Amino acid sequence: MSAGPDNGETFRFPLRVYYEDTDAAGVVYYANYLRFMERARTEWLGSLRVDLAELERGHGVLFVVSRVEIDYLSPARLGDLLEATLTLIELGRARMVAMQDVTRGEDVLARSRVTLACVDRATFRPARIPAMLTAPLHARLETTS
Amino acid sequence: MSAGPDNGETFRFPLRVYYEDTDAAGVVYYANYLRFMERARTEWLGSLRVDLAELERGHGVLFVVSRVEIDYLSPARLGDLLEATLTLIELGRARMVAMQDVTRGEDVLARSRVTLACVDRATFRPARIPAMLTAPLHARLETTS
Amino acid sequence: MSAGPDNGETFRFPLRVYYEDTDAAGVVYYANYLRFMERARTEWLGSLRVDLAELERGHGVLFVVSRVEIDYLSPARLGDLLEATLTLIELGRARMVAMQDVTRGEDVLARSRVTLACVDRATFRPARIPAMLTAPLHARLETTS
Amino acid sequence: MSAGPDNGETFRFPLRVYYEDTDAAGVVYYANYLRFMERARTEWLGSLRVDLAELERGHGVLFVVSRVEIDYLSPARLGDLLEATLTLIELGRARMVAMQDVTRGEDVLARSRVTLACVDRATFRPARIPAMLTAPLHARLETTS
Repeated sequence: MSAGPDNGETFRFPLRVYYEDTDAAGVVYYANYLRFMERARTEWLGSLRVDLAELERGHGVLFVVSRVEIDYLSPARLGDLLEATLTLIELGRARMVAMQDVTRGEDVLARSRVTLACVDRATFRPARIPAMLTAPLHARLETTS
Repeated sequence: MSAGPDNGETFRFPLRVYYEDTDAAGVVYYANYLRFMERARTEWLGSLRVDLAELERGHGVLFVVSRVEIDYLSPARLGDLLEATLTLIELGRARMVAMQDVTRGEDVLARSRVTLACVDRATFRPARIPAMLTAPLHARLETTS
Repeated sequence: MSAGPDNGETFRFPLRVYYEDTDAAGVVYYANYLRFMERARTEWLGSLRVDLAELERGHGVLFVVSRVEIDYLSPARLGDLLEATLTLIELGRARMVAMQDVTRGEDVLARSRVTLACVDRATFRPARIPAMLTAPLHARLETTS
Repeated sequence: MSAGPDNGETFRFPLRVYYEDTDAAGVVYYANYLRFMERARTEWLGSLRVDLAELERGHGVLFVVSRVEIDYLSPARLGDLLEATLTLIELGRARMVAMQDVTRGEDVLARSRVTLACVDRATFRPARIPAMLTAPLHARLETTS
């Protein structure tokens, strides 16, 4: 994912391609990669013991995507077994940046950089990432030198 | 749509089939007909001057689908110009039933019967349809004798 | 699922509710239950060693949904862990009928009856279910007496 | 959309936000902006008398998205009337680049840059944009100096 050393902090989430994911061109519809990436983010947060529904109810915040850059390199097809990955590369007070790939075996089918903003659930204005989250997130931050 | 006389109360909403609607079999994915039908219901309510977001905020209720019966008769394809229709056939205190077709020209591609329940937005328990709605709905009720 | 004895032939597929599945009413959008049910059907066929892409390429047929009856009993919400189930209840030459529920623990959130038709991939006309499939399907047919 | 003069070549496609487009955060789900943008691209091509299904059958090519950069600036909500826009800014032999916004009145809710590749429908390898298309596309190319 980068020239830096792999420190084992890339999260991987397996998924299968169903008819719902494909389109009449016979491949996965381009917007659906963003659905795959969201599943990986949710499961990654879950692996840090963060529940999105509780984050919203308990802390009054949610994470929204503020920017996506995605390159579609090779198409995925019906029945494919894929992985959606996540590597945290930047962590600020109210935002974080992750690299997210969609892979099939050794092949990278899509490669993206996703910026997430922590926002107030009512106003959607930037909000500080809850303290309970910053420690586990810092531990997952990719530290390449 | 029924043996009864057509009294002109069938609402029609036009739509086009995009890649997003299709799947790898080259046709519209079966769940997406339900999306088309929801668009027609929303526009039909809009034609009765009902705004769903206001209904939720102002009256604390929303309409949820409680039952669908749908027959898929013929596939729709990329680029097709379709219509989603709605004919109200039953109206109760907290529920209504509509016939909804998806058509392409003279052809009926899907035919459905949809039961909508008015529910409290917080509890999702049945709630009376707001009075402001019952008069215009009664006027749209198909009256066949 | 029925008054008959449970003969262990109900297939269960676990899934989690992500933001993509929900809508502004805070619950899973009604059409998305059909996506969940398709995933269970695909995995069920996979458990019979049937690959949909190969079925299409090798036998020139695919399964399409020809009818759905679904009752929405209770809403699913963000983060819920659900199961989509499948019990085969009828098997003909070119069609089969399955009961499919979406459950959360002991609760049945949606209950459906789905008719699948085997069709020619080019013409979408009814086609005989390939012989390689009929034996394993018969073995899975719920036999209640 | 840019510092250059507006030469009237921005295509605008109106759309309404339905429940299907929203998520449990009460706003339009981030991947669905890409569906809106695809609708605008299809209608824009249609305005150039290009039919995607015919392009695939007749010329053996299709357009796939090879890169998206999108900034989500402000959320869209249930019932909103939006416009998805398209301005062609680059045109090559086998690819083109468009700016695509999603707007609500004067507000830009999302701003994107989308790279489209013309590919062979069977191999998904780069293919020359059909000659019938290059003349009308050149006429739509934003020419700012």
